[in-house]
Amino acid sequence: MRGGSTVRLGELVEALGGELIGPADLPLQGLASLASAQIQHIGFVTGARHAEAMRASHAGALIVPPELAEEAAQQAALIVSPNPYLYYARLSQWWVARLRAPAAGVHAQAVVHPSAVLGEGVEVGALAFVGAGAVLGAGARIAPHAVIEAGARIGPGTHIGAHVVIGADCELGARCIVHGGTVIGADGFGFAPEQGRWIKIEQLGRVRIGDDVEIGANCTIDRGALDDTVVEEGVKLDNLIHIAHNVHVGAHTAMAGCAAVAGSTRIGRHCTIGGDAKIVGHLTLADHVHISACTVVTRSIQKPGTYTGIFPMDDNASWEKNAASLRQLYKLRERVRALEQQQKKN
Amino acid sequence: MRGGSTVRLGELVEALGGELIGPADLPLQGLASLASAQIQHIGFVTGARHAEAMRASHAGALIVPPELAEEAAQQAALIVSPNPYLYYARLSQWWVARLRAPAAGVHAQAVVHPSAVLGEGVEVGALAFVGAGAVLGAGARIAPHAVIEAGARIGPGTHIGAHVVIGADCELGARCIVHGGTVIGADGFGFAPEQGRWIKIEQLGRVRIGDDVEIGANCTIDRGALDDTVVEEGVKLDNLIHIAHNVHVGAHTAMAGCAAVAGSTRIGRHCTIGGDAKIVGHLTLADHVHISACTVVTRSIQKPGTYTGIFPMDDNASWEKNAASLRQLYKLRERVRALEQQQKKN
Amino acid sequence: MRGGSTVRLGELVEALGGELIGPADLPLQGLASLASAQIQHIGFVTGARHAEAMRASHAGALIVPPELAEEAAQQAALIVSPNPYLYYARLSQWWVARLRAPAAGVHAQAVVHPSAVLGEGVEVGALAFVGAGAVLGAGARIAPHAVIEAGARIGPGTHIGAHVVIGADCELGARCIVHGGTVIGADGFGFAPEQGRWIKIEQLGRVRIGDDVEIGANCTIDRGALDDTVVEEGVKLDNLIHIAHNVHVGAHTAMAGCAAVAGSTRIGRHCTIGGDAKIVGHLTLADHVHISACTVVTRSIQKPGTYTGIFPMDDNASWEKNAASLRQLYKLRERVRALEQQQKKN
Repeated sequence: MRGGSTVRLGELVEALGGELIGPADLPLQGLASLASAQIQHIGFVTGARHAEAMRASHAGALIVPPELAEEAAQQAALIVSPNPYLYYARLSQWWVARLRAPAAGVHAQAVVHPSAVLGEGVEVGALAFVGAGAVLGAGARIAPHAVIEAGARIGPGTHIGAHVVIGADCELGARCIVHGGTVIGADGFGFAPEQGRWIKIEQLGRVRIGDDVEIGANCTIDRGALDDTVVEEGVKLDNLIHIAHNVHVGAHTAMAGCAAVAGSTRIGRHCTIGGDAKIVGHLTLADHVHISACTVVTRSIQKPGTYTGIFPMDDNASWEKNAASLRQLYKLRERVRALEQQQKKN
Repeated sequence: MRGGSTVRLGELVEALGGELIGPADLPLQGLASLASAQIQHIGFVTGARHAEAMRASHAGALIVPPELAEEAAQQAALIVSPNPYLYYARLSQWWVARLRAPAAGVHAQAVVHPSAVLGEGVEVGALAFVGAGAVLGAGARIAPHAVIEAGARIGPGTHIGAHVVIGADCELGARCIVHGGTVIGADGFGFAPEQGRWIKIEQLGRVRIGDDVEIGANCTIDRGALDDTVVEEGVKLDNLIHIAHNVHVGAHTAMAGCAAVAGSTRIGRHCTIGGDAKIVGHLTLADHVHISACTVVTRSIQKPGTYTGIFPMDDNASWEKNAASLRQLYKLRERVRALEQQQKKN
Repeated sequence: MRGGSTVRLGELVEALGGELIGPADLPLQGLASLASAQIQHIGFVTGARHAEAMRASHAGALIVPPELAEEAAQQAALIVSPNPYLYYARLSQWWVARLRAPAAGVHAQAVVHPSAVLGEGVEVGALAFVGAGAVLGAGARIAPHAVIEAGARIGPGTHIGAHVVIGADCELGARCIVHGGTVIGADGFGFAPEQGRWIKIEQLGRVRIGDDVEIGANCTIDRGALDDTVVEEGVKLDNLIHIAHNVHVGAHTAMAGCAAVAGSTRIGRHCTIGGDAKIVGHLTLADHVHISACTVVTRSIQKPGTYTGIFPMDDNASWEKNAASLRQLYKLRERVRALEQQQKKN
């Protein structure tokens, strides 16, 4: 893992809580997985399922749940927490915040339009572009080569990655993260057919993104046709995700890599959308719906639950036979029906 | 929707035709959906299917088909048109053209090679790069941070978005639009195997794109191995689409988001390719072929029509049982055959 | 294909071997496909399968296998090679190397941090960004608008394309190629749930990429959570591929466009992953495993071989009937079982 200066175990407990078992002045140079950790690292164990990996670990300190504390104390200093995974998440944030360089202001080779409004402590990287009338909230960090088009609004503390495009008039809330190469606010895909040709429908809506949203690398979120495309607070998107125009993604929903949502679909709150899952247009998904990876959603879902549709993988020869049979499945059903009727007669 | 100054209803009819019913001097500040429209907006109704939404709308003006004119006239000023959706498309274009800033020339912080040839009225944004010998047609607009590599040719009136790459020697026609982050002219994926290693085949072809083509955000269109990759006029591509080397896409074909076409495949004219549909390599699709979303095309298609292959989504427990049965489908077919033969004997 | 100055046929044989049949001083202006080649071009024929295309070709020179030499000699000058496809690959490399401009050094409008270390003959293009402490090996070429973040290491002879992002502290080996728009080292997708919200897990690992790796356009390879994400030497990735955090891709494995690998999965050496194939997280694939295009891998694979899972495409009406039957497949199996039991009784 990436380097960092030394901290004392006790500092962690002071900052993040938990019960300390062992020397408060134990020096630590980083977080590490159980398998990679050395004496200068702190690792974490989420439960009994990982007890064996724990025993084999050389970590100098461990975050453990209460039920493993007694055993773990024999091999390492401990932070005992009811939820070690969550503790680890918070620790990773604390660690990174500690190492973060202070905001460097506006780079001499950035291009910032004079009418843009920059809050206190804003950082704009080398060769970044900030258009006319754009607004950057206090503490926003714009990476080198990011493009913030005219009239866009970036909330306080939000971090825009390298090569990101935030389209004209689009809005992001506070404390968002947008990773490299993502394009927010390109035109939605809208055309009217006319005698075999496609007549462009200009996309006049915006993209509006709530607070605490994280968006992965090389995603696309299109602006709405007339109304806005909306991503509510706390949503987390992985890489290469496509959100079409006028989609509405409810708060705290998470989508894994390569998922896509077609136009005007409305996804509820607290949903999870598996990697590469695809949701066709003009549907509504209720809150707390979970779509398995690689599943195609072709109808609205009113009921919370887990939904799946994956063709099972097989060795190629078996697949070929089953796929050929699948193309005759309806006929097979008819044949079974005929057999049943014949049997009834007998 | 995004703001704009006031126009009079009569101006629209003068510019775009249609029958005006109501005051020509009605002030309008924008287009809006039926649900969002207020008194200062114009909306559109495509047919009786949306009559209820029309009745509930607060739009000050409506574009309606003749059969709804009488009823609609009771609630708003009207433009009557036989095809309101097409009228709306043209109006959206007219509205945007009205608001477009005049071309700003070459930004002081763009990098344009002295041997590049720029037509009249060309705009090159801040921090854009135009390589040696590149040719930009009259009125072409190159957004901030676009990269036009050496020898590339951009047709008149074409708009290249932020962070787009147009590879060396590639060509785009007139009035094209390429949205942010798209890469045109990266190497096709070609390697010769040699004793367990892959030997690169340099990709010596180009990408050639016709007039009036629109390409979404974060797409990739690879250059050909020897011959060119070709996208004919009027083609429309959504976001995150992959067009491999030596593909040929026929005129006026449209592809929705996340579609992909593997190498050397030839797609006809006036086709539609649904979102996430995948077409394997070395196939030929006839004109007027329609591929449903998320369908995998593994054989050539000679006959116009609609083709589909989607695993139906189900609740997870039902899917598990059906997927397990699917892996035994061929055997099930054999069992039905055996039953039939037995029955014949009886 | 793209232009180039004239070479003599004999120069090719001197550089790359093979048996020359015909005039060594035959002038050639480029490589071409059999269909496009003219008298000034050299084409290649991999075997008898292409004999007809060979006969119809106007190529002035041909690379042919021994068994076609006698016939081919009647129409063109020849280079005879046991593996014409491999010969063509090497020739394409030789051709491009010949035309490549000498390294141009660091462009005046690049932004290179004073603490970055640049090897001999490094080229950094216009508006590229190289962060603090980054290391560029001898002969590395950084395209215009590429971003090399702080502490990243780029091996000798490696080529980074336009708009690529190489994240902080990530490492690439020698002679790699990364095409436009790819983002290496964005955060992996990791969150701990807490009362319906997602708490970010900072991603502290790196991405480490071996020698001779080629990565297509608009891909994403995420940094590891604690340990590193690893891509071994000789791996070839096509466009729009997603490699999640802590994935390990074995040497000389190739993946076609739009493939994706979810977190912590381990893929063996010498595998091929078809276009749009998806591999879920926490799996292990053995060496020499071949996954067909568009197949979803949901379990580990210990045995070399070819694995497939594609829903067969059909005309839409047939698909509808078969898909409806598929949702009843488990019940159909039960009905067949009942028939069998009844028959046994009779």
